[in-house]
Amino acid sequence: MIQPEQLLQTLHAHFDKTPYGNHPDELYEPIRYLMSLNGKRFRPLLTLLSASIFDENWDGAIKPAMAIEIFHNFTLMHDDIMDNAPLRRGKATVHEKWNANTAILSGDVMLIKAYDHLLDIKPELLRSVLSRFNQTAAEVCEGQQLDMNFEMRWDVTEAEYIEMIRLKTSVLLGFALELGGIVGGANDEATQLLYTAGENMGIGFQLKDDLLDVYGDPEKFGKQVGGDIISNKKTFLLIEALAKAEGSVKEELNRWITMKTFDKTEKVNAVRGIYDQLGIRQRTEEKISTYFNSGFTSLEQLNAPSDRKQPLLQFAHQLVNREQ
Amino acid sequence: MIQPEQLLQTLHAHFDKTPYGNHPDELYEPIRYLMSLNGKRFRPLLTLLSASIFDENWDGAIKPAMAIEIFHNFTLMHDDIMDNAPLRRGKATVHEKWNANTAILSGDVMLIKAYDHLLDIKPELLRSVLSRFNQTAAEVCEGQQLDMNFEMRWDVTEAEYIEMIRLKTSVLLGFALELGGIVGGANDEATQLLYTAGENMGIGFQLKDDLLDVYGDPEKFGKQVGGDIISNKKTFLLIEALAKAEGSVKEELNRWITMKTFDKTEKVNAVRGIYDQLGIRQRTEEKISTYFNSGFTSLEQLNAPSDRKQPLLQFAHQLVNREQ
Repeated sequence: MIQPEQLLQTLHAHFDKTPYGNHPDELYEPIRYLMSLNGKRFRPLLTLLSASIFDENWDGAIKPAMAIEIFHNFTLMHDDIMDNAPLRRGKATVHEKWNANTAILSGDVMLIKAYDHLLDIKPELLRSVLSRFNQTAAEVCEGQQLDMNFEMRWDVTEAEYIEMIRLKTSVLLGFALELGGIVGGANDEATQLLYTAGENMGIGFQLKDDLLDVYGDPEKFGKQVGGDIISNKKTFLLIEALAKAEGSVKEELNRWITMKTFDKTEKVNAVRGIYDQLGIRQRTEEKISTYFNSGFTSLEQLNAPSDRKQPLLQFAHQLVNREQ
Repeated sequence: MIQPEQLLQTLHAHFDKTPYGNHPDELYEPIRYLMSLNGKRFRPLLTLLSASIFDENWDGAIKPAMAIEIFHNFTLMHDDIMDNAPLRRGKATVHEKWNANTAILSGDVMLIKAYDHLLDIKPELLRSVLSRFNQTAAEVCEGQQLDMNFEMRWDVTEAEYIEMIRLKTSVLLGFALELGGIVGGANDEATQLLYTAGENMGIGFQLKDDLLDVYGDPEKFGKQVGGDIISNKKTFLLIEALAKAEGSVKEELNRWITMKTFDKTEKVNAVRGIYDQLGIRQRTEEKISTYFNSGFTSLEQLNAPSDRKQPLLQFAHQLVNREQ
């Protein structure tokens, strides 16, 4: 049986020997820098896992899978400018290490290189794959725009939030699985199931991210636990709490999110306490389960031998149980 | 015989009914704004003129031609952020009217929409067109990076400058003509000639831009004459003058380009005077003629009835003689 680790090694080896471009260095070095920061690369892994269900020879899916990862990193390079983020994967972001202009232009050429990696797809599949990729890529931008719009609003509903993370995060996971299926030779019904599976798991994945930021084990999480609370980031947990809180609890929550100066640990503990009081943790965990289970159901419905589906299912379960 | 004006009308009509996307408005409105600023749209016009040489029915070239113009406007939206430009076509740039984040993200989605407009190309041609488009698009970014690198340098050579404008401006004009040929059914020899013609005319076009900025008729030019001199922009004229000036002329030129405060009209007149003394105008005009003539020669070599080539040749001659 194929091991995810084996596929990851293959991906790493291919990324390591990709130069992205030659001249001028100022344009391509930031790409090599960002791509070398050891991202988890689970999006291209999903593509390979998906392709390997339908085709033992999943080599043809490598370059398309890389396109997904390069596209994802392009969005990170540009989002980090927009979010004014100093760090990415524990290292300086490109706009911090160089400057915003470099991050804009290197990001642009990354998007072009992502398209270039899709050209290996069989000619008869190319048009439909690109059409789906274009749709997905535009949706990711739409999600980022909604996320920025939400910064100015305090009345974001749960439904609006789920739609935002669906666009910003999930559609690319859905397309990563769908793409593997298409390249592997799956039929339309199967690629649709793969997309739906990825879309649902992607929402679960982002909600898990929101949860870990508040309830993660500081030893395992990698990032500062409570970062979202400190910055008033409109996560699923905060949106739920704002909707549920009443009376004095609501007043306390509002007091913390409007406070200009505060002790960080105190704020994190206080807001986490409010979440506990309102049952937000449990509600978030239930939502995560619901979305992941819905994803698993789609994968189980796939008309393929269950031993071929096993590696993908196993990896998907790791995503639910992750602690970082 | 086909009239360029007729093709332009068709293009305008198609752009006017293109929404680019729906939701959220914050993402797509800046695209509609920039695309409505009445650019000259001569790049997509070149594509249609080129296609119409080989195919009386040039309808199939409209969406690919639009891709070229959308791509060009994407580069403007991002370049204007990098260059801190307040105005574009006499109106506020997107990052001025909205903000830099909006200009980054709307620009990103524009690039995706450019790719989307290429998908109408016949499936058997799609892969090779996209491969050439990717190469061209990356080269345009490389040219912009070189242009930014040159801002920090005073030793840019003529050859380096020509290579920079070839990448930043000419390759897209070359590809615009090549694309029309491909879609119109031209053979490889013809598409290669079209590319070379566009590449050479593109260099001539940019040099003409540099020249008009110094010697243009203020009544006709549209922009402030002398803007490049005021900002010490490293144009062909300044690079030539820096290379040619000696003794007291060199001292005077250096004095003007290092001066922190100055009367704008006085500086423009003084530097223009130095250019006159050094014969820079004549040298630039000769270069412009050389590149355009080289482009015309390629077009004349095209194996197509000369009445079919006439509209393109006629339009190319307008580009040489333009005064704005």
